[in-house]
Amino acid sequence: MEKNPDTSLIIIGGAEDKEHDKEILKFIVSLVDVSKDQIVVATVASEEPKKAREKYNKVFKELGVANIKTLNIDKRLDAFDQKNIELIKTADLIFFTGGDQLRITSILGGTPIYDEMKRASKRECYFVGTSAGASVMSTTMIIGGKDEDSPRKCTIKMAPGLGLIDEVIIDQHFSQRGRIGRLLAAVAQNPQILGIGIDEDTAIVVNKENKLKVIGNGSVYIVDGSEITYSNVSEQFSDEILSMYNVKVHVLTKNKMFDLTAKVHFEEAKEKNENNK
Amino acid sequence: MEKNPDTSLIIIGGAEDKEHDKEILKFIVSLVDVSKDQIVVATVASEEPKKAREKYNKVFKELGVANIKTLNIDKRLDAFDQKNIELIKTADLIFFTGGDQLRITSILGGTPIYDEMKRASKRECYFVGTSAGASVMSTTMIIGGKDEDSPRKCTIKMAPGLGLIDEVIIDQHFSQRGRIGRLLAAVAQNPQILGIGIDEDTAIVVNKENKLKVIGNGSVYIVDGSEITYSNVSEQFSDEILSMYNVKVHVLTKNKMFDLTAKVHFEEAKEKNENNK
Repeated sequence: MEKNPDTSLIIIGGAEDKEHDKEILKFIVSLVDVSKDQIVVATVASEEPKKAREKYNKVFKELGVANIKTLNIDKRLDAFDQKNIELIKTADLIFFTGGDQLRITSILGGTPIYDEMKRASKRECYFVGTSAGASVMSTTMIIGGKDEDSPRKCTIKMAPGLGLIDEVIIDQHFSQRGRIGRLLAAVAQNPQILGIGIDEDTAIVVNKENKLKVIGNGSVYIVDGSEITYSNVSEQFSDEILSMYNVKVHVLTKNKMFDLTAKVHFEEAKEKNENNK
Repeated sequence: MEKNPDTSLIIIGGAEDKEHDKEILKFIVSLVDVSKDQIVVATVASEEPKKAREKYNKVFKELGVANIKTLNIDKRLDAFDQKNIELIKTADLIFFTGGDQLRITSILGGTPIYDEMKRASKRECYFVGTSAGASVMSTTMIIGGKDEDSPRKCTIKMAPGLGLIDEVIIDQHFSQRGRIGRLLAAVAQNPQILGIGIDEDTAIVVNKENKLKVIGNGSVYIVDGSEITYSNVSEQFSDEILSMYNVKVHVLTKNKMFDLTAKVHFEEAKEKNENNK
């Protein structure tokens, strides 16, 4: 399989449509040769892996995929199993389902399968994650925080993620669960990191040049704290509500693009380019 | 200045001796040409930057350093100041004092000075950090957690750090504050990450090949979770005490070496090498 240079990671905000237009899943399937390429559904995040497996097997089969495998790891010992390692070796696309992102890292971290995944990310294998599978993609990930709350340092919890994408932090079910407060709290702790909040049934497609494009039916928030002039995040009382000035927020919908390295949206990049001519 | 290939980062567990043998600070000074190389003392972590500045200026002067500058940034706007950026451009060694690691990232993250530091880390400039300045070195850092407690998920707090060293997490004042529990809790969340607990008046010297050597008067704990066969870190109740099986712990003292990539101590590496002959 030859990898599409425009696609490297697909990160979904959870609850992607599986019944109607199936826009996101159809896009994913369009990346592979359905007659032979191997899709591996990794259910490691889920407490109910059987349910997750059945759901995704059904929809991928409906979309014509012939070769669907399940990576069914629910304890660390399974991650040392040669049969499971082989699945990753031969994978053309790995799809992380939802559940708990901490299950993924605490079960796979430091195992041979993790190393095999790192190798897979460097060859022609696509990585896709939804919900917990989305959060886990970044180097530092959000693992908990209060929904529908003001930004507060005390409620946000982070941990080291899979590291497939650097200098961003991803939140999912974003509008649906009112998570702008917790994403702001994360970004304020280190504004070098760009916050990405992805709605349900919405995804970002990230290419090799670290540019993203939005697909699906909701919105994607980009929270850029690099121009924050003041925040009280490192001050004494951790249950205080955070104040911060000058956060830049972009809201992108279908087909909008954003350059994660330059921290500019596509129109701005085009303009700059033209000014440089 | 030509950088010593054996040294890239010096990470100190806090409270390095400044009165008696001054082993760690003498080592640091030995890296530079005291007659002209510029040491920049970055007091950004500290709530009392004046005290920190005076303390380090005094001891570096006693050790013969002629060119000592202070990077005195206590709000984000200072990190956009050209004068401060110039200090980093001309630095031969940057020394981060103690305080609160979250001050460093929340004030410097996403600013031009952060970019300048990244450039400095790629040229012949040494980075040194003590206490909070030690924690901040890694890609994901510990920002809080209960001392002298069993490992518990609910108490450990992490955030994105400066990213000068990857796939490790650093804790300081390690034996003095009883921090093995919180370091274990961090490692269990993603055993890909090696935990490094550094005692007071003790430091690790990390070279370009990601090998460390211990200096100073205490011990350095290495917590390797890669062979953990089971942990309950992703299970339901976050105030439960963690259980985990099969964590590998190394305790290193002065002159001991450890390969952070291969996750083996020096003697083991030598043995493997000889077996391969």
